[in-house]
Amino acid sequence: MIQIATSREDAAALDAEDPLAARRGQFGIPAGTIYLVGHSLGPQPTAARQKAQAAMDAWQHDLVRGWNTADWIDLADRTGARIARLIGAEAVSVTVTDNVSVNLFKLAVAALSLARQPVIAIEDDEFPTDQYIAAEIGRLLGLDVRRAAPGEGFAALGTGGVLIKSAVNYRSAEVADIAAYEEEARRHGAMIVWDLSHATGVRALSLEADGALMATGCTYKYLNGGPGAPAFVYLARDIANRVSSPLPGWMGHKAPFAFDAMYEPRDGAARFASGTPPILSLSALDGALDAFDGVQMSALQAKAEALGTLAIARACALGLDMRSPAEGHRRGGHISLRINDGYPVVQALAAQGVLADFRAPETVRLGFSPLFLTYAQVWDAMEALGEILQSRSWDRPEFHRREKVT
Amino acid sequence: MIQIATSREDAAALDAEDPLAARRGQFGIPAGTIYLVGHSLGPQPTAARQKAQAAMDAWQHDLVRGWNTADWIDLADRTGARIARLIGAEAVSVTVTDNVSVNLFKLAVAALSLARQPVIAIEDDEFPTDQYIAAEIGRLLGLDVRRAAPGEGFAALGTGGVLIKSAVNYRSAEVADIAAYEEEARRHGAMIVWDLSHATGVRALSLEADGALMATGCTYKYLNGGPGAPAFVYLARDIANRVSSPLPGWMGHKAPFAFDAMYEPRDGAARFASGTPPILSLSALDGALDAFDGVQMSALQAKAEALGTLAIARACALGLDMRSPAEGHRRGGHISLRINDGYPVVQALAAQGVLADFRAPETVRLGFSPLFLTYAQVWDAMEALGEILQSRSWDRPEFHRREKVT
Repeated sequence: MIQIATSREDAAALDAEDPLAARRGQFGIPAGTIYLVGHSLGPQPTAARQKAQAAMDAWQHDLVRGWNTADWIDLADRTGARIARLIGAEAVSVTVTDNVSVNLFKLAVAALSLARQPVIAIEDDEFPTDQYIAAEIGRLLGLDVRRAAPGEGFAALGTGGVLIKSAVNYRSAEVADIAAYEEEARRHGAMIVWDLSHATGVRALSLEADGALMATGCTYKYLNGGPGAPAFVYLARDIANRVSSPLPGWMGHKAPFAFDAMYEPRDGAARFASGTPPILSLSALDGALDAFDGVQMSALQAKAEALGTLAIARACALGLDMRSPAEGHRRGGHISLRINDGYPVVQALAAQGVLADFRAPETVRLGFSPLFLTYAQVWDAMEALGEILQSRSWDRPEFHRREKVT
Repeated sequence: MIQIATSREDAAALDAEDPLAARRGQFGIPAGTIYLVGHSLGPQPTAARQKAQAAMDAWQHDLVRGWNTADWIDLADRTGARIARLIGAEAVSVTVTDNVSVNLFKLAVAALSLARQPVIAIEDDEFPTDQYIAAEIGRLLGLDVRRAAPGEGFAALGTGGVLIKSAVNYRSAEVADIAAYEEEARRHGAMIVWDLSHATGVRALSLEADGALMATGCTYKYLNGGPGAPAFVYLARDIANRVSSPLPGWMGHKAPFAFDAMYEPRDGAARFASGTPPILSLSALDGALDAFDGVQMSALQAKAEALGTLAIARACALGLDMRSPAEGHRRGGHISLRINDGYPVVQALAAQGVLADFRAPETVRLGFSPLFLTYAQVWDAMEALGEILQSRSWDRPEFHRREKVT
């Protein structure tokens, strides 16, 4: 049984009972903004700003000694340990390093050494970067890269190989059953590299319990780490010391300041570190994670599902073309609507303080980041969308003007 | 003819005539600190802090729209264009992306496609990360990696291949003659990937005129970009569109927001971008470069050489064991001294506000970053060093205590 608001008063009542409601106070969101783009770039947690500023203070006053005084040298691992809790992993199994593209490369190449055959599969609806990286590994190593229809990745692999797979699809928000996929992988001698970019911080992931072995994800979406905040790598304890990174930078070395010519990788996920991490951006991410302290991921997921379900109910009432699963447990933190003229519609929404995103050619995505959104905001946003569509107020020249980044 | 101060008054007189003296005011260096570690982590330029804060403001107030309002989408290229001037390159030939480890991998793999034979050479005294990356490319692609004695990299390559080479050695500060190396490379059908980490911002580099084709370097040393600021990639126009990155992330795509399944790389160095860059750290770097506006690199190099030569003269007077070239034009921005008990000596210097660095087992490095150091400071630092060594005041328990990062 779920409760779905059918009036603004209902929505406000749900807010009054929301155990996460107070978390909103930890974000510096401009007044009058309904922010439905947390799946793209999370808003700024106050602590993210504070920790970035503290890092700037340490740099200014302690100079190079900041590596000791602010313990920057272990910041990537400490931040990884905090993310570990959010994805159901041991602290040693997660570190923060590089970006998702680079991490997918490192992990997929490493996964090949454990897979039964040297083949990579990727489904057609995966995020483009994941596809580029898969194709390039194939070209570089002379391997077969098999493109598969959505959901057909395993079938394409045959008996073993490496599948690159998103836990939540970036467009449809369709959720993959990690435990079921991993069981299938074990049966076939296959390896899966999970892209958790759209899942982390909004789904109650349990990577270890589900038998996941390798994953990466970005931290600037639901984790609110800031624009381009560095990504994380998850590497299960069982396999960590049996694989190595094809990008062995000094930060992944057991004794980086011994300046050995020979590479001796660290234990756990830390062996997938490469060069020096961007400390200011990493500090902001560390601060952003404060907003998750004491929060159960199951509660976060439940609220994200409820917000999304409310939006879907309103979208259905508006007769909109839904491209995401209706059932909350099959859906990540966002929904995709197919709206012709989606671009000017999104601009018209923005003019009313409702921020959504548009993905060419006709997808409007609405994200329901549960730490800072209210039910009433979702209600209001859908009302605004309905009004804009009905009145065709989106059809003004200023809403058609294209920005560089859409 | 060079002028070398032989008294503190001489040093102060050189400062009085120093055309770069006013630049010091652009840095927020704590009073009482003589900072000789600019070759490791540059101090904080005030504008670096300001631009990082502006990026945080844009994130807070404009949220995801910051990609347009603050033009984050082109920030890596804009920042690269500013670095281009400092290394003697066209704007289109430089972008900011990833770290040096990752960039060395991308460039060396790409270089193999243009080299006459699939061999990599690296000299034994190169920075360890460069050696790790070279070894790993060999392992990954099944190529021969030839380790060579210092200066013998080309001889090891034979007839063509890829040499990874620092323009300034991280330990000795020995300068490589880029033009001469490139001429040799052309003769042999070899490619060179330059590591400019210890050269950028302190040497008057002229990559294009010298025929250099590929390079990377870090930005947190003499460029003062902040801890872990992202690195840059240089790719000469002649070859840019003939090579591709083995890590093709979406930021290197010609139309990243078209979400094409096929990769179409951008023109110039930008094709070596990978995932989303860390905007806060990148913004600090952009700000840090303000301190170089209007500065001729030849003037910077001349001052760095003069400061180093003064330090060497004083070190000789102290009877110290110099491990760097005496001639300024053969030397980068730092000098290495071999000092037994170098670790406590560096700690004793720090206790007097003179920051230097120690590299195991017995190297003390002093860096002469010309934008903010004065001749009088170098004089005072060497006086302090002499006093500490003579009095053996370094031999106290507190100076032997090991920090995590040394």
